[in-house]
Amino acid sequence: MSDPPKPLAARFCAEPGKPFSLAERDPRGNGIFAAKEETKSATEKDAEAIDALQDRLFAEGKRALLVVLQGIDCSGKDGTVRAVFNRCGPIGVRVQPFRAPSADELAQDYLWRVHKVTPARGYIGIFNRSHYEDVLVARVKAFASAEAIERRYGEINAFEKMLTDNGTRILKFMLHISKDEQAERLRERIEVPEKRWKFNPADLEDRKLWDQFMAAYEAAIERCSTEHAPWHVIPADRNWVRNAIVARIVRETLEEMNPQYPEPRGWDPKSVKVE
Amino acid sequence: MSDPPKPLAARFCAEPGKPFSLAERDPRGNGIFAAKEETKSATEKDAEAIDALQDRLFAEGKRALLVVLQGIDCSGKDGTVRAVFNRCGPIGVRVQPFRAPSADELAQDYLWRVHKVTPARGYIGIFNRSHYEDVLVARVKAFASAEAIERRYGEINAFEKMLTDNGTRILKFMLHISKDEQAERLRERIEVPEKRWKFNPADLEDRKLWDQFMAAYEAAIERCSTEHAPWHVIPADRNWVRNAIVARIVRETLEEMNPQYPEPRGWDPKSVKVE
Repeated sequence: MSDPPKPLAARFCAEPGKPFSLAERDPRGNGIFAAKEETKSATEKDAEAIDALQDRLFAEGKRALLVVLQGIDCSGKDGTVRAVFNRCGPIGVRVQPFRAPSADELAQDYLWRVHKVTPARGYIGIFNRSHYEDVLVARVKAFASAEAIERRYGEINAFEKMLTDNGTRILKFMLHISKDEQAERLRERIEVPEKRWKFNPADLEDRKLWDQFMAAYEAAIERCSTEHAPWHVIPADRNWVRNAIVARIVRETLEEMNPQYPEPRGWDPKSVKVE
Repeated sequence: MSDPPKPLAARFCAEPGKPFSLAERDPRGNGIFAAKEETKSATEKDAEAIDALQDRLFAEGKRALLVVLQGIDCSGKDGTVRAVFNRCGPIGVRVQPFRAPSADELAQDYLWRVHKVTPARGYIGIFNRSHYEDVLVARVKAFASAEAIERRYGEINAFEKMLTDNGTRILKFMLHISKDEQAERLRERIEVPEKRWKFNPADLEDRKLWDQFMAAYEAAIERCSTEHAPWHVIPADRNWVRNAIVARIVRETLEEMNPQYPEPRGWDPKSVKVE
């Protein structure tokens, strides 16, 4: 990696309390990294470091990391998980997808189903979509009133603050792709037989609402990028750039958390005998 | 791999309805594989194949695979997950550990907490310990009456049959290590600071009950190795032998299941246009 400034998180963060505009964010991320191959191997090293840190987080068992991945269809949420977290494997990492809520879930408040699946201490939990859908698609398609959406920003901030205060570090990533890049990826999903299962004709209806979705993202990021749970806006038109930035920010965060293997409690390594 | 007979599953299976003895099973697995390095790279190739098959299973979304891992402390359950499933990553694979049941879980029947976490269609679910603890530790420590244990074998078979009939393929592995090998691994956990968090002094108490645990395993395997959910007894004194056998059996099973990418439903790849 041609050494971008450290920590990388600050560069892609949406500053809490400040106006936020997506137009100022380049989805290609030009000029951040020099060479593709170098960057890819830096990402692999970061994934290796994340694996080692995750093992310590798991062993420590006192804190969790919640990674929220949001982005329009085809923004690369699954690909990001693969590049950053496959190295860790499934023992201490759980991916939680959020689909359209069920009738039972709709009979509860919108955070109910989310709270049930927040990561336990020791774990890295990855939300593939999240409670943010309740201020994104819910706003664009008017599944909730404008007043309810308005109230939710504050409720989400309070919910995330509670999680943070109770030991869960939160990292939120919006995978930012251009409308042209989405078109190319949708076409690929339609053309390549092994990718067709990921395509849903309804995605084309959502594409027509592109501007409304982007406005909803801008509002959610502006209102919910907080000191305790910052939003990062990741240039995602090129997979290797996206992966490199997310991996580095996750690594930086885990290094800052600095989890420790616990000391033996209630037994003394010097006196215990195996017979 | 110096080509052991295929399918490998048959070689390590406990034959349904037949008497079963652990004494006849060599925990070192001598004579199965020739060279260590070759075997390790065969395992990596199997893990790669499993990753591709898991993607198809996930895309198909109609069936699940449940992998049950049982074994005495230090038998290598986590190591097996890493070697066989890390390649797949956490998107379509979930590891479910079972610890001592909570008060709320004890207030229900013993299969209640298990059923809640069986894998959804499309997923590979891995149980690190399982409902078998309810006929293993529960038998050794008399947490349940002899009559209840006796009844449970049949209940477990019926439960697993129901899962199988509803689309979940079940593979059960007992990781079989020798008492000497356990001693060595326990000593390592005590001596290596980064491994101490895995050690629990209660493990030494369980070790004193070795023979009783082995008798409980023999009964569980004999009574619950069925055509629909066979038990495999894996030589586990050497990690690379253990990993190679489990990876191969998982691969064989997924190949036999032969999941398919689904055909487009409700849309035609030739007429859909992205604008």
